[in-house]
Amino acid sequence: MTASDLSVDPVFALHRGGKIEIRSTAKVRDAEGLSLAYTPGVAKVCEAIAADPGLADTYTWRSHVVAVVSDGTAVLGLGDIGPLAALPVMEGKALLFKDFGGVDAVPIVLDTTDVDEIVETVVRLAPSFGGINLEDISAPRCFEIEKTLQERLDIPVFHDDQHGTAIVVLAALENATRLIERPLSDLRVVVSGAGAAGVAVTKILLEAGIGDIAVGDRKGIIHSGRDDLVGMKERIAGATNSSALTGSIEGAMRGADVFIGVSGGTIAEEAVASMSPDAMVFALANPDPEVDPAMAAKYAKVVATGRSDYPNQINNVLAFPGIFKGALEVGATQITKGMKLAAAKALADVVGDDVATDHVIPSVFDQRVSPSVAEAVAKAAREGGVLRPHR
Amino acid sequence: MTASDLSVDPVFALHRGGKIEIRSTAKVRDAEGLSLAYTPGVAKVCEAIAADPGLADTYTWRSHVVAVVSDGTAVLGLGDIGPLAALPVMEGKALLFKDFGGVDAVPIVLDTTDVDEIVETVVRLAPSFGGINLEDISAPRCFEIEKTLQERLDIPVFHDDQHGTAIVVLAALENATRLIERPLSDLRVVVSGAGAAGVAVTKILLEAGIGDIAVGDRKGIIHSGRDDLVGMKERIAGATNSSALTGSIEGAMRGADVFIGVSGGTIAEEAVASMSPDAMVFALANPDPEVDPAMAAKYAKVVATGRSDYPNQINNVLAFPGIFKGALEVGATQITKGMKLAAAKALADVVGDDVATDHVIPSVFDQRVSPSVAEAVAKAAREGGVLRPHR
Repeated sequence: MTASDLSVDPVFALHRGGKIEIRSTAKVRDAEGLSLAYTPGVAKVCEAIAADPGLADTYTWRSHVVAVVSDGTAVLGLGDIGPLAALPVMEGKALLFKDFGGVDAVPIVLDTTDVDEIVETVVRLAPSFGGINLEDISAPRCFEIEKTLQERLDIPVFHDDQHGTAIVVLAALENATRLIERPLSDLRVVVSGAGAAGVAVTKILLEAGIGDIAVGDRKGIIHSGRDDLVGMKERIAGATNSSALTGSIEGAMRGADVFIGVSGGTIAEEAVASMSPDAMVFALANPDPEVDPAMAAKYAKVVATGRSDYPNQINNVLAFPGIFKGALEVGATQITKGMKLAAAKALADVVGDDVATDHVIPSVFDQRVSPSVAEAVAKAAREGGVLRPHR
Repeated sequence: MTASDLSVDPVFALHRGGKIEIRSTAKVRDAEGLSLAYTPGVAKVCEAIAADPGLADTYTWRSHVVAVVSDGTAVLGLGDIGPLAALPVMEGKALLFKDFGGVDAVPIVLDTTDVDEIVETVVRLAPSFGGINLEDISAPRCFEIEKTLQERLDIPVFHDDQHGTAIVVLAALENATRLIERPLSDLRVVVSGAGAAGVAVTKILLEAGIGDIAVGDRKGIIHSGRDDLVGMKERIAGATNSSALTGSIEGAMRGADVFIGVSGGTIAEEAVASMSPDAMVFALANPDPEVDPAMAAKYAKVVATGRSDYPNQINNVLAFPGIFKGALEVGATQITKGMKLAAAKALADVVGDDVATDHVIPSVFDQRVSPSVAEAVAKAAREGGVLRPHR
């Protein structure tokens, strides 16, 4: 597009100048205000924190600010576009953190893709923030980065592409199974995609007690007989596929109850038609779902996508603002499995008795979502005992 | 203090919850808004920046956001109190950046004091920001950190403890010399302190054409006969003290026209009394000036301090908001000597014909300051040709 094209495009018009700003919450209108907010007054606050570091949670913005950290390697469906081009997404995330969860968030895009350098950089930044939201970092690097940061930091570290997606998928699936009156433990699931989202969806479904789950990557269903698997995929092979399926993802869909697409690509109509009578199809690739929603509706009881123009939108904004809000409010040191499962349960419960085939997940604009998720996450953090000592 | 003491102290009351927040400038009230600000719309902006990185200046907040970076090693007069205890100062700086210059600023406190690690960390962060304000980093480490970052980054890097102080001192000195009708080149100056501020003040005074300048550290006047000097102090010895003074700072003050204290400590009354008849005393240590202002007034024509409760307050907030505002507006790649001198000139000119012994520098609340400094800095950047190519 030319510059003049950009100027009339509503997307570019909205993005002009960026989407966030810093605002002062303490006004400095005169010498007295300046001497309280800055020198000499501020020295007293510095000395108090030096003597008792826990006071930083009370007397700085740290307890309510999150860094949204990306290296720009897996941005939306665009792939490795680099840190500068990723910045609009991180700003958007910061906007959503504030508007949907009341959490302050700062976009931090990094000029390195080296796992160790990313870890070291975030560790060094960490005194500035109360939590770290990792974003759009490619698999399998994202797994190691998140794990190492969780071990080294005493603040929540959360890769939203993994866990945000997984939590919302689980919430939608919990409500969908209520419609067909079958327990999660009874279901056979096929997950298409073994990247960040596919792995995290698989893990949370296992933790939620799903019956059987088969995960596929570009080479087909992951099973222990494949000799090309290392790291996370090797662990996936060991933990899933109790039916010992092999071959294509479409083949595995025969008789399956749930299809979850988190990888893009296209699933043939015959494969969708071969699923169980009460099938659930979550085709989450954006902007082009793996299964055309209209086609899927011919065969499936529940159809969900990542898109706002169809029912049942699986959108991470249903999860991450409330999760960090809850975790920060109680000074949690991490986001545990229990906190993630509690978030999914709370999110599902917002739908409550209004559950229907076209309403298995709340609207992103349902104002009950973030407070409900935050409350459940805070409660699970307290029960799990993962609070910083001074809080 | 106990917790209940803290709750009634106005300083702590003001600091509760911190002093800044993130605000959205693009509102997302419905699905259409969400699809413009976030997916799928934001992908177009990402792709445009990936194709033309210069567009990040227009379509993200980068062009108006500065990182305020500290390792907490030289915080106010408190010394090395660490990153967490330094955070209230960096937040205060961010507040002042916004309220006085309209510049967004994010506090970044680092959990490392290693020069190379600080440099690497800031380089990796740099795509997120349009400028780097270094703050409260101890000398001589601050000199190498700033120099290396300037070489490696194409955005302004500015250690405010050095240059902010130097610029305001020069502005005040320019106006003070108008009162005694002598040119800068005629003056003999004694600077007490060879840390960040002392070195930067010395440099800018030399660039402004000061006649003679002697710098002292804890061991007395720096001269080329001393065998304990390395690095920056060795360079100071080579570039200053054309009168070849040796011995104590107080001894060097005999007959001197200007005393600039940027190190703390106490200067004896006899030394102040021994200065030239039109002496100028800038005793800038906070909260306790090196020379009691009331005592200094008995001997000096102009007395300036760092305090708000005396006339002629030398406060960096007169410089850094306007300097970054001007530099960011034109997309400057650095803050050059010319831009610093232009800032000092503009700051001095705000006083104009109102110059008086108790008014050699504007009030920090004079609303003409930041726009005047910004305009002068932007002009000097354009004339110096230090603009990023796409701006």
